[in-house]
Amino acid sequence: MRVGWVVVMTVLVMASTTAEQQTQALRLMPWPESVKEVAGSGQLLIQNSFSVSLSGTDPRLRRTVAIFLDDLRRQTGSLPLDFAWAESGNGQLQVSVGHTSKEIQELGEDESYTLEVTSAAATLKAPTTLGAMRGLQTFLQLVRITPQGFALPAATIQDRPRFPWRGLMIDSGRHFMPIEVIKRNLDGMAAVKLNVFHWHLSENQGFRVESRRFPKLQEMGSDGWYYTQDQIREIVSYARDRGIRVVPEFDMPGHSTAWFVGYPDLASGPGPYSIERKWGVFDPAMDPTRESTYKFLDEFIGEMAQLFPDKFFHIGGDEVNGKEWDANPKIQQFMRAHSLKSNADLQAYFNTRIQKIVEKHGKITEGWDEILRPDLPKTIVIQSWRGQQSLADAARQGYRGLLSSGYYLDLMNSTAQHYVVDPFTGPTASLSDADKEKILGGEACMWAEYVSPENVDSRIWPRMAAIAERLWSPQSTTDLNSMYTRMEEISRWLNAYGLTHSSARTLMLQRIAGGEDISALETLVDAVEPVKGYSREALAPSQPTSLTPLNRIVDAAPPESLEARLLSGLVDALVSGKIKPGMEAELRATFASWRDNDIHFRALAANSALIQEALPLSHDLSALGAAGLEALDYLDRGEKSPQPWKSQQLALTQAAIQPRAQLILVVAAPLQKLIQASAGEPPTELALPKNAQ
Amino acid sequence: MRVGWVVVMTVLVMASTTAEQQTQALRLMPWPESVKEVAGSGQLLIQNSFSVSLSGTDPRLRRTVAIFLDDLRRQTGSLPLDFAWAESGNGQLQVSVGHTSKEIQELGEDESYTLEVTSAAATLKAPTTLGAMRGLQTFLQLVRITPQGFALPAATIQDRPRFPWRGLMIDSGRHFMPIEVIKRNLDGMAAVKLNVFHWHLSENQGFRVESRRFPKLQEMGSDGWYYTQDQIREIVSYARDRGIRVVPEFDMPGHSTAWFVGYPDLASGPGPYSIERKWGVFDPAMDPTRESTYKFLDEFIGEMAQLFPDKFFHIGGDEVNGKEWDANPKIQQFMRAHSLKSNADLQAYFNTRIQKIVEKHGKITEGWDEILRPDLPKTIVIQSWRGQQSLADAARQGYRGLLSSGYYLDLMNSTAQHYVVDPFTGPTASLSDADKEKILGGEACMWAEYVSPENVDSRIWPRMAAIAERLWSPQSTTDLNSMYTRMEEISRWLNAYGLTHSSARTLMLQRIAGGEDISALETLVDAVEPVKGYSREALAPSQPTSLTPLNRIVDAAPPESLEARLLSGLVDALVSGKIKPGMEAELRATFASWRDNDIHFRALAANSALIQEALPLSHDLSALGAAGLEALDYLDRGEKSPQPWKSQQLALTQAAIQPRAQLILVVAAPLQKLIQASAGEPPTELALPKNAQ
Repeated sequence: MRVGWVVVMTVLVMASTTAEQQTQALRLMPWPESVKEVAGSGQLLIQNSFSVSLSGTDPRLRRTVAIFLDDLRRQTGSLPLDFAWAESGNGQLQVSVGHTSKEIQELGEDESYTLEVTSAAATLKAPTTLGAMRGLQTFLQLVRITPQGFALPAATIQDRPRFPWRGLMIDSGRHFMPIEVIKRNLDGMAAVKLNVFHWHLSENQGFRVESRRFPKLQEMGSDGWYYTQDQIREIVSYARDRGIRVVPEFDMPGHSTAWFVGYPDLASGPGPYSIERKWGVFDPAMDPTRESTYKFLDEFIGEMAQLFPDKFFHIGGDEVNGKEWDANPKIQQFMRAHSLKSNADLQAYFNTRIQKIVEKHGKITEGWDEILRPDLPKTIVIQSWRGQQSLADAARQGYRGLLSSGYYLDLMNSTAQHYVVDPFTGPTASLSDADKEKILGGEACMWAEYVSPENVDSRIWPRMAAIAERLWSPQSTTDLNSMYTRMEEISRWLNAYGLTHSSARTLMLQRIAGGEDISALETLVDAVEPVKGYSREALAPSQPTSLTPLNRIVDAAPPESLEARLLSGLVDALVSGKIKPGMEAELRATFASWRDNDIHFRALAANSALIQEALPLSHDLSALGAAGLEALDYLDRGEKSPQPWKSQQLALTQAAIQPRAQLILVVAAPLQKLIQASAGEPPTELALPKNAQ
Repeated sequence: MRVGWVVVMTVLVMASTTAEQQTQALRLMPWPESVKEVAGSGQLLIQNSFSVSLSGTDPRLRRTVAIFLDDLRRQTGSLPLDFAWAESGNGQLQVSVGHTSKEIQELGEDESYTLEVTSAAATLKAPTTLGAMRGLQTFLQLVRITPQGFALPAATIQDRPRFPWRGLMIDSGRHFMPIEVIKRNLDGMAAVKLNVFHWHLSENQGFRVESRRFPKLQEMGSDGWYYTQDQIREIVSYARDRGIRVVPEFDMPGHSTAWFVGYPDLASGPGPYSIERKWGVFDPAMDPTRESTYKFLDEFIGEMAQLFPDKFFHIGGDEVNGKEWDANPKIQQFMRAHSLKSNADLQAYFNTRIQKIVEKHGKITEGWDEILRPDLPKTIVIQSWRGQQSLADAARQGYRGLLSSGYYLDLMNSTAQHYVVDPFTGPTASLSDADKEKILGGEACMWAEYVSPENVDSRIWPRMAAIAERLWSPQSTTDLNSMYTRMEEISRWLNAYGLTHSSARTLMLQRIAGGEDISALETLVDAVEPVKGYSREALAPSQPTSLTPLNRIVDAAPPESLEARLLSGLVDALVSGKIKPGMEAELRATFASWRDNDIHFRALAANSALIQEALPLSHDLSALGAAGLEALDYLDRGEKSPQPWKSQQLALTQAAIQPRAQLILVVAAPLQKLIQASAGEPPTELALPKNAQ
């Protein structure tokens, strides 16, 4: 389920004032349906005497508030004994819930809430415990340090989600992610009101769950890296306490090499099989023609259906290349005997059988686009990696669907690129209201070829918060500047949950540099981004595998350079004549720091093999800094830069944007505009080279 | 067990070249007994193909090496599947162990090892698995990034500890420390070759262990913050895998209010009792005159003796003020009837009874100085918070002892102050060799009035590494400059173990400032230290309790300002005429940054209640910066600064060193020297005010 991105260079638009901008001092993400802040009506102080009272007796609600109190303590640096429970109606925060939530969280439960904060108290009302959870996170987002101490501004917020399915998929198959990684990401999900954790648990590179019925799955298919059933239960319970459903995915009949190491009879080829170390789409696939396959899967799905209480069960179903089927005479014979004309027909046959097994065990089947065939019942859910067209097609045929196309976090796109993707744009926009109801929401996907437990947070966060906003907030919430402003604050706020998206970078860069002083390395890292899409593998110095260390600069660099974005904004303002005092000084300081950085960078590189590959980038950054300063000089003197100079500098930006060390010097783009402007030419966008997209 | 410190301002001595300096490029701490590095003999590269082979079949050794491989992966950013096991004798690291270690780790087991690294392979030989553990940490410390990749220099190291008992005590009684805090500190302990975790588990403010026999201990005495027995077993096992013994302490008969909440009959007063929230020495004490007390403690100690396998059992025994005993007529009558002339006699009677109970359950009694009375058997161990004199006295009477005086991490002293404390200086130096054998080593103590799970690492680390060196390395290892240089590197290396001593500071300062840009706050924090000794409570704005948040600047500031130390060195060099090119420029840049910082600091303070208290410090820092620049001007011009100017500036330093916000602007001390030098006067040390010591 891989897509190619048309890279859209984000243009900063100075939009008209929006609701988010008006109250942009509020650090809220996803932005609520309605926020009313009354200026001058004071604030609610959070002191040591802070207390919470509850109405309602749902034990899950009490646990929810206990978790909230822990979050509040961490956020304010208070201690385990601060903050207390109060008698009903007496708390500074009064939580009331209409009715208890379902024993097993269901799709479509009411998640709305109303939060009213005055200088005396806060009132949180919700029809369900789930709504209270969402409101408590809004409360936490409102708390900040003020001249009087920690406080929330007086405000009234009414809120409800736009879509009932708002998910994050983490791929534990390609690189195993330990329990603590999953837990902290569940914390982050709850913080931005996501409600589905889609857990990709089997892959060619590893089978990651303990099966007691078929223990060779994990014993021979995981290199010892798998979750015990106790750990699975722990995660399911942890997620439930945070209002998150856990949907397991066991990919079949393809993406299944790791199953076959212990159980080769399941496969369509002769075997033997070993755990795959490379990345890509591979030949091994289950044999859909043998009854023993279905017997195995019936028992296996039965066991997993018990372990994962959620109503939905994801069977994958993507990317079967059919080569093992083509090569197996018995399978060919079976196809002829059953009038199955293509491998797609054979897979549909398989899916029909599997769907019945899943249903028999009380679950609803979910799968990637490929499983959609009219012979499957209308209950199934399609997760689309192909885009809105296939979602629209599915909805018109009566199938429910989820959008994941445009939300692939591994492709290293900018937050803006993800943020503009909406389940209801393009082909889905014209659906009838009834068909639109079938679009349940979306899921971001964290495929794990190039992430480790150390840097996975930095690929998910903070971009995930913007996708969460897309799926929760009204469709009209689209202001990019407001989004970026709030996302930076939310990113910092998420640190209190133990997410490592910010902190890991420093540790990784210190390891790379072998010392404390990483400023020269940081100057470069701030100016680059990893190559995009699926270009990393193609640009790799040698064939990457699941054993390749992920400890290089490209692994420490964030997917989006916020510094480059800032610089673009400054250059655009300068070029369009909107320069404000100090802007040029900031540009000059930045360019000078680049120009002077290379000597320090080279000193670091002399001590570290991990820095050397970026030497050409550092050299170019230095040249870009010098070019920027010269361009500013021409502009300041009101003098057009001469043609030869301009050509030479544009050649430099063209060279600088070429990928090296699997990194792109993205600041070359605003530099091109500045150089063009200095020559009196209209600025144009510098496209990423095709091989880096 | 509290001591007052005579603050010794550390004087930087340019010592003659030492062994540590000669090989100071090696990041080793504790410094080994013997290190031979042959220049030009190459290095051992750590590549993906790195493998380890073992000789010996101790399952603990195999686990040890598995943990080592995980550490190596984290340190190099490699993945769970990198690095492998090799057939015996074929590994790039070959580990051989003489014999398996004891089932339950014992005091005095051989911890020596020999590590030989060549460009082809490394060989680690040790008589025991414990020695192999120590050698593996040395191996990890040697690994660093080089121009060729991660590598170790060719070297031969022979090593053994100076003392058999090298510990860290963590007080989980006053502030509860969750399991993950304990685990990461055990990792840190193993990394610097410590071998005893002394766990202070009961206090007036909390009883922290689940007792199944007496469940009201934790149910009523812990506010819900206690370790389950499963968690205790998990920690004991985790520690064992890292070569660390776990010695529990249950403080009795004093420091025991939390016991009495659930079991008031144990106490000497009428009750009822509630969990203590204040800090200090309190009246409640167990009733040593009732048989029911001993029956209870017999059953309790029996239960705990099962839970904690170590041979030693710490009964505390410190700081009984005797007031409840004085006020209880039955106790007075008992004392008369048994000819107990003082409360000390009564406590000795209690200790004798308890010691027999501890012995009955197979354990050796350990306690603080106060328990030492000649009627106790010679098996007991005295932990001295009073100093070398009481250790020497105990040893002469035939008792074994440990030094903790001088190693109290809560007192906020400099690393140098801890480093110069040696179990064999002063009164112990003149002991006979046989008596010296009775000094087992020492323990650092992390008392927890002013630490939370968030900042406790920053109080323990990196200073603990220097104390670990004192207890492991030869007594002659005393070079302060070498120690500080290596400690800074080890501090960074310890980040890979997940210790938060560095990372928590940024998160805490961002919380205090309420934003990303904390540079003005960092400039101040770099120049201050928390007040020392026991002055924090006296200087508190209001009575501190266990509920007081620990989220202020004083809680984020490290115990020792390494920037102040650096500055002192520069000023000393300048004043003594040893100035090198660039030194003055560095001083000028620092002073200018202070001078210009206040305006930014005030802008931060306008938004945050947590910054306001430090405004006077920021003002003074600014003034010190200006004074420093002027002093340099006088020195540069070869002109004596005028008397009135000098007097005014010295008054400033005197004012600046006064504690505010429980912080000391320690950089005032080198500034005084500079000002004096500018006036042609001999520089003198600026003493800390008495109320901040």
